[in-house]
Amino acid sequence: MAAAPEQFAFDPQSPVFRAHEGGKLGVHATQPLRDRADLALLYTPGVAEVSLAIAADPTLSLRYTARGNTVAVISDGTAVLGLGDIGPLGAMPVMEGKAVLFKHFADIDAVPVVMESGTVDELVEAIVRIAPSYGGINLEDISAPRCFDIEEQLKDRLDIPVFHDDQHGTAIVVLAGLINACKVLDRELAEQRVVVAGAGAAGVAVTKLLQRAGVRDVIVCDSRGILAPSRGDLGGHKLALAASTNPRGIHGGLGDALVEADVYVGVSGGTVPEAQVARMARDCMIFALANPTPEVHPDVARRHAAIVATGRSDFPNQINNVLAFPGIFRGALDSGAGRITEAMKLAAAGAIAALVPVPTPDEIVPSVFQEGVADAVAAAVAGLA
Amino acid sequence: MAAAPEQFAFDPQSPVFRAHEGGKLGVHATQPLRDRADLALLYTPGVAEVSLAIAADPTLSLRYTARGNTVAVISDGTAVLGLGDIGPLGAMPVMEGKAVLFKHFADIDAVPVVMESGTVDELVEAIVRIAPSYGGINLEDISAPRCFDIEEQLKDRLDIPVFHDDQHGTAIVVLAGLINACKVLDRELAEQRVVVAGAGAAGVAVTKLLQRAGVRDVIVCDSRGILAPSRGDLGGHKLALAASTNPRGIHGGLGDALVEADVYVGVSGGTVPEAQVARMARDCMIFALANPTPEVHPDVARRHAAIVATGRSDFPNQINNVLAFPGIFRGALDSGAGRITEAMKLAAAGAIAALVPVPTPDEIVPSVFQEGVADAVAAAVAGLA
Repeated sequence: MAAAPEQFAFDPQSPVFRAHEGGKLGVHATQPLRDRADLALLYTPGVAEVSLAIAADPTLSLRYTARGNTVAVISDGTAVLGLGDIGPLGAMPVMEGKAVLFKHFADIDAVPVVMESGTVDELVEAIVRIAPSYGGINLEDISAPRCFDIEEQLKDRLDIPVFHDDQHGTAIVVLAGLINACKVLDRELAEQRVVVAGAGAAGVAVTKLLQRAGVRDVIVCDSRGILAPSRGDLGGHKLALAASTNPRGIHGGLGDALVEADVYVGVSGGTVPEAQVARMARDCMIFALANPTPEVHPDVARRHAAIVATGRSDFPNQINNVLAFPGIFRGALDSGAGRITEAMKLAAAGAIAALVPVPTPDEIVPSVFQEGVADAVAAAVAGLA
Repeated sequence: MAAAPEQFAFDPQSPVFRAHEGGKLGVHATQPLRDRADLALLYTPGVAEVSLAIAADPTLSLRYTARGNTVAVISDGTAVLGLGDIGPLGAMPVMEGKAVLFKHFADIDAVPVVMESGTVDELVEAIVRIAPSYGGINLEDISAPRCFDIEEQLKDRLDIPVFHDDQHGTAIVVLAGLINACKVLDRELAEQRVVVAGAGAAGVAVTKLLQRAGVRDVIVCDSRGILAPSRGDLGGHKLALAASTNPRGIHGGLGDALVEADVYVGVSGGTVPEAQVARMARDCMIFALANPTPEVHPDVARRHAAIVATGRSDFPNQINNVLAFPGIFRGALDSGAGRITEAMKLAAAGAIAALVPVPTPDEIVPSVFQEGVADAVAAAVAGLA
């Protein structure tokens, strides 16, 4: 949903605009350039030796250029935060912010690349062409369903890790939270009845990762109701999702799906009426992740659920991708992994969950600023490379 | 010419490889990220305000993202230094070195983008698509004649400065050197008979800029001899060049062109026999710019010429692009220039020449490390924006 113009005001004196003056990223040399001798080492004629060595043995590129620690944060600006299609220039502050997080949490040199949008093929061709510049690619804020095809094609064509964070980062942290929520409630994750509200990037990835983690009963709803093969309005990825979910063959809307459900995962925006929330099973778990307005307000959710999580930092249990993506890429880069596998995503979720030794209803995931999160995730990922 | 394998050895302990370990560039945040409050300013939810403001008024992008000070150094690795087509990975150390120079001399945040090569259209499409990420584009080490079409198409399609340094950087510094060489010799630049040896990127640009500076008698030679409309083997840019040069209609090879020539500009590699050099006019000027081996060794050149310049730092009069490109982009970015015009190139050459108040035969251009070069060039460029 695009925000209405009245939801923001351009005020150069406000803290946010002052913090963004001149942008949030800089580039620096890691070697001194003091005199002609340095110039001859770092540039001509010395650099020719390094170029020739890499041309003869391309694997040396990771050692002798910054590429081995560089991740491109790539977006076409078609699905930025909750703001919708605001274009590449509008997307840039978000991508710079993401790059700041990469640096802060995992010491990765991330560079934003915002692109004019286009067809799946056009975007894939452009990204493949510039891919030799990077050690990994983080896709960001690209609208569904294009994001699915773009990621799949890039994974097929490139030998560096490609990761669409809106999908997999969210899925990994949701899974981590559910692992610990089940621990708190002494339940088996695989036995839970899960309703995923939202069939976009996050909803699809959450569903698939939960299934891979063993959850058998997942129902997915889009804005028109429960995904089911009988629906005539479904195509592509939603049809595939309908075929693999909803094992009890429930028909209807979200309110029908929620009857006796154990887990609600909202990645859709909108609001769930309390009467529908009340139909969920006893001691249920509510993950209302829409930002800034959760689908179920935590005060309402707590009246019905044993565990409540949101995407916000001002309530307990913040489900935040930053728990996952820095460590995911750190682990992949350190281990030379050519791709982020499903096993790595499961391991990352397990590592995040394990950082909370004794989970409680108000602490199912680590804090964003907890020390050692990225290291633990990186180790889990690298161990599978 | 690609270097033969025996010309380099991969020795991890050598100074060059040690200086390149881990690459030469890093990315850093320019704003502190200490706590949740910072996170809320630099990333969600605060960043949304900035994104929406830019989406509403794209000109704000230059102020509120790093883009306004960011230049992409783009190459497909097809004409790297004198090494030939060594591919994008092989090109990366050179592009990183170039980015180091951008930072050091003009405080510009340059990011290398190396691309899989392809047709002109394929490269142009990819570059246009990622162009919103940058405030300017420096093309580098792309083989001729593709580099001409790529640059022209990008200039037509983009509203940010696009500059192929191998062409225009070289041309600007050659012109600066010739302005001062003529001052030393008390000659009129426009009256000089100039021979340009090499019809690639540098040769074409040198010829065009000298013509624009008023030089009427330029002869261009490629490896087969003097460019002339009568030659049946010329196409594209060489045919156009043949039509606008060689006003006296000389036929033959470089040796014929050099008879009574006042200026030799070598951007071709190879060696000119001393007997041919000896045919040049009295008190001639020899710019033998091939690296690392000048077409005429300076010791030989001095026996015949009043002014000798090379591309090397260990002889006087080093013609080095680094005198031009940092200031060119600094001026363009500071003034919001959408393109680098011919007038700006002439002004840049004039500014570089003026930095040597009293030129001498051994000092026709400033030293690479002379203070204030980029500032002077930037001011000259910005004054015309």
